[in-house]
Amino acid sequence: MKADILDIAKRRGFFWPSFEIYQGCSGFYTYGPLGTLLKLRIEKLIRDFHVMEEKCLLIESPILTIEAPWIASGHKENFTDMTIECGKCGEAYRADHLVEEKTGKSTNGLSLSEIYKIIVKNKIKCPKCSGNLGNVYEYNLMFETSIGPGKNRIAGVLRPETATVTYLSFKRLFEIGRKRIPLGVVQFGKSFRNEISPRQGLIRLREFSQAEVQFFIDPKSKNKHPKFNSVKNVQVFVLTKEAQKNGGKEAKMKIRDLVKKGFTNQWIAYYLAKSVQLFEQMGIDKRKLRCRQHKDDERSFYSSDTWDIEFLSDMFGRIELVGIADRGEYDLKRQMEFSKQDMRVDIDGKKQILNIIEVAYGIDRPLFCVLESCLKKDKDRIYLSFPPETAPHQVAVLPLVRKDGLPEKAKKIYEMLKTEGFYVLYDEEFIGRAYYRQDEAGTLYCITYDYDSLKDQAVTIRFRDNKKQIRVKIKKLALVLRGLINGELRFEKAGKVVK
Amino acid sequence: MKADILDIAKRRGFFWPSFEIYQGCSGFYTYGPLGTLLKLRIEKLIRDFHVMEEKCLLIESPILTIEAPWIASGHKENFTDMTIECGKCGEAYRADHLVEEKTGKSTNGLSLSEIYKIIVKNKIKCPKCSGNLGNVYEYNLMFETSIGPGKNRIAGVLRPETATVTYLSFKRLFEIGRKRIPLGVVQFGKSFRNEISPRQGLIRLREFSQAEVQFFIDPKSKNKHPKFNSVKNVQVFVLTKEAQKNGGKEAKMKIRDLVKKGFTNQWIAYYLAKSVQLFEQMGIDKRKLRCRQHKDDERSFYSSDTWDIEFLSDMFGRIELVGIADRGEYDLKRQMEFSKQDMRVDIDGKKQILNIIEVAYGIDRPLFCVLESCLKKDKDRIYLSFPPETAPHQVAVLPLVRKDGLPEKAKKIYEMLKTEGFYVLYDEEFIGRAYYRQDEAGTLYCITYDYDSLKDQAVTIRFRDNKKQIRVKIKKLALVLRGLINGELRFEKAGKVVK
Repeated sequence: MKADILDIAKRRGFFWPSFEIYQGCSGFYTYGPLGTLLKLRIEKLIRDFHVMEEKCLLIESPILTIEAPWIASGHKENFTDMTIECGKCGEAYRADHLVEEKTGKSTNGLSLSEIYKIIVKNKIKCPKCSGNLGNVYEYNLMFETSIGPGKNRIAGVLRPETATVTYLSFKRLFEIGRKRIPLGVVQFGKSFRNEISPRQGLIRLREFSQAEVQFFIDPKSKNKHPKFNSVKNVQVFVLTKEAQKNGGKEAKMKIRDLVKKGFTNQWIAYYLAKSVQLFEQMGIDKRKLRCRQHKDDERSFYSSDTWDIEFLSDMFGRIELVGIADRGEYDLKRQMEFSKQDMRVDIDGKKQILNIIEVAYGIDRPLFCVLESCLKKDKDRIYLSFPPETAPHQVAVLPLVRKDGLPEKAKKIYEMLKTEGFYVLYDEEFIGRAYYRQDEAGTLYCITYDYDSLKDQAVTIRFRDNKKQIRVKIKKLALVLRGLINGELRFEKAGKVVK
Repeated sequence: MKADILDIAKRRGFFWPSFEIYQGCSGFYTYGPLGTLLKLRIEKLIRDFHVMEEKCLLIESPILTIEAPWIASGHKENFTDMTIECGKCGEAYRADHLVEEKTGKSTNGLSLSEIYKIIVKNKIKCPKCSGNLGNVYEYNLMFETSIGPGKNRIAGVLRPETATVTYLSFKRLFEIGRKRIPLGVVQFGKSFRNEISPRQGLIRLREFSQAEVQFFIDPKSKNKHPKFNSVKNVQVFVLTKEAQKNGGKEAKMKIRDLVKKGFTNQWIAYYLAKSVQLFEQMGIDKRKLRCRQHKDDERSFYSSDTWDIEFLSDMFGRIELVGIADRGEYDLKRQMEFSKQDMRVDIDGKKQILNIIEVAYGIDRPLFCVLESCLKKDKDRIYLSFPPETAPHQVAVLPLVRKDGLPEKAKKIYEMLKTEGFYVLYDEEFIGRAYYRQDEAGTLYCITYDYDSLKDQAVTIRFRDNKKQIRVKIKKLALVLRGLINGELRFEKAGKVVK
């Protein structure tokens, strides 16, 4: 199955390692035609939910930034990994990971010198060339550059997250949002992390896509999410920090019980429910998702409560897909302090700093999990069971043969479906091969225009998941497809079943 | 009018200078909520055209790259500006621009030392502090960083264009595209240019968005574009290199005559026509667009023919919106040479290097030109006359008052229109103010649910451009709006005119 995913990803154009012709560079991937469409549709799902349903403001800020906000945020000081290099071959490693691997013991909370002592004591050598390892040092994971020429150039940084860049525009956004609280802001785009040695494909990238949502809220309103009731009976798998401490396992739980039992607040609980629903809509296997609370010693120092939704991948084990955190007043307070701009707002006649609840989605990881969840094997074929919400193409229009006027007629149907707003493609490939190709691309429905169509003004619709076919009048085609895609029609009832 | 655009852009959330709270950094802008929606819709227009109509493959490659492709492309050597710094205040200038400004003479083709001599001879000083200027040097415009830690880190570059990054995947894309020629590939995303001192808002950014399309074609097919006939009678304003040499002016010309008279080939002419049409669809004033051919001494050395489509801006003068170039075999040949990978393909049984026709759109500049073209002033109001294709919101649903059940009813209409696929928002602002706000946001139609609606099951539609209103039954609303947006219905005929 592992080989299948990477094979289909490369061969069919979902993604592949970048810079292949120059022997590559780990941590960079290129999305091919199907991958880019899949990514666009995943982004659209997250965007439409937050903009249309949650009334968030959508913004786009620079990727390349000045350094000041990252000094304020603490990234300049704390966004580091403990690193060690081989004196012989130069290979670098995460010192803490190396020690954990070689000793089997946790390095949580250990200092640089403590880690170094363990390395010396255990005579740990370079895993690649057995050379001696150097000192352990803190390595900052931000990519640095400089902006402008000459003496007056200033330090530039590739943002390690979108969140802090969003905070910089808080005052302006608060005005644009007509000073309403809560204020939600969502930002999509690339962020960067100069990983030491990333080796997990799309799961650990040096350049990755995010969708980070910031809710600026009244600190007193954490247990008053306006739409909490709409999700209170949603069930999710939960692993609390208490359970982890006691070696407990995840448990199925209703969202309202998460709050009632004091595990978290309404805002976090609401977005845990909504995120699980979004992932399910994308096509991710819901049974493999769990909501895991960060333990006290793994949580970022500025957060009072953080949860991840994790997917259990066959290929990579547990993968974090979204992080939902109560960042408190930390960010606005720090940016206010360092920029000397007043970022407080009036609440009940008093100037206050708002608190931030953050919902930080990765895009690349959910995309991989959609692929893994949707890859299906029949005895004679592979297909991708994408739902209509994320399928790169919902419909393919195919002429049975490339002659006798069939292509021209099929093209007209393609044009009609395009105008109707379907995600549709047209292909003149030999029909058996075309079905095979569309199965591998995850296209839900293949419309075939054949010789009978010339007489009966009808076409065949083939459904990807069971290869069954129905015959439908062309004038009803758009309506039927819409019904199938909306889930209002059942396939076998939507037309005359072809035997 | 200038002040109006920048004022409305900031106030209503189209865009503003980034990092304002830290005193900013020139060349970086943030798109606010309306700007981001406008940008998404401009991108969608370009994407849908190239993917759906022109059958291009859509890909997404990294922004941060290794250095090798830029050595091959020539950027490492040639992507430079002549720079000079003040020894006293450190301010940097483009040396050639400074000389042109002070002497009024062209510096085309002059070397570093020739420029320096002119500076010395004319006693040109620092325009800012009158300090003495240093040496003239070549300053590379690529942002540089390094990837990975320690000794084994490698040079990294923020891409100055998407084009070269697309070429790196040529072999894989050629396979995915089933070896069909021509092969079109389009890539959207950020690119970077470390400008010396950018001072023109969205027009000259250090970080900007692009949509670059690469057509890999048989070199013998340059005068055989398969759809050339569909544009041959399109008329555009043209300024050829000949005309520029002879001090001639632009002339209105049919696309077919551009080719017939030998000014350019069918591929370039076809995309000149199509690009002008796309810009017009976006809302850019077509009368201010012209197709200007690069003169021999301004064209990049690898190109045999390049055209820009330029907009005549009130605020910034001539602005290049897209560049269409015949890049010949230069790129694939160079990448092949430096990567040692065979990038030739079989044509008529012979291994050949394909030629590239590039259509390189900026996104930020067309966005600005859409705003400038659409900003309209009535005696008592400002409005943005965005077409339905790019309006951030096509429809706003407004309850007349915030009581008596009107908001609930209006919300239902909002939900219905959302499901029908309109770009729609809901707002409970006081009605007069709401109209004013929607005019400034460029929303085409305001739907008002009032007290009569409770009785007659109808609502008022107000048209942004003339403030006229019609009354339409709610059950017909979606149909009427679709007709208005598609241009199939005329506003005054679409319902009962409200006096």
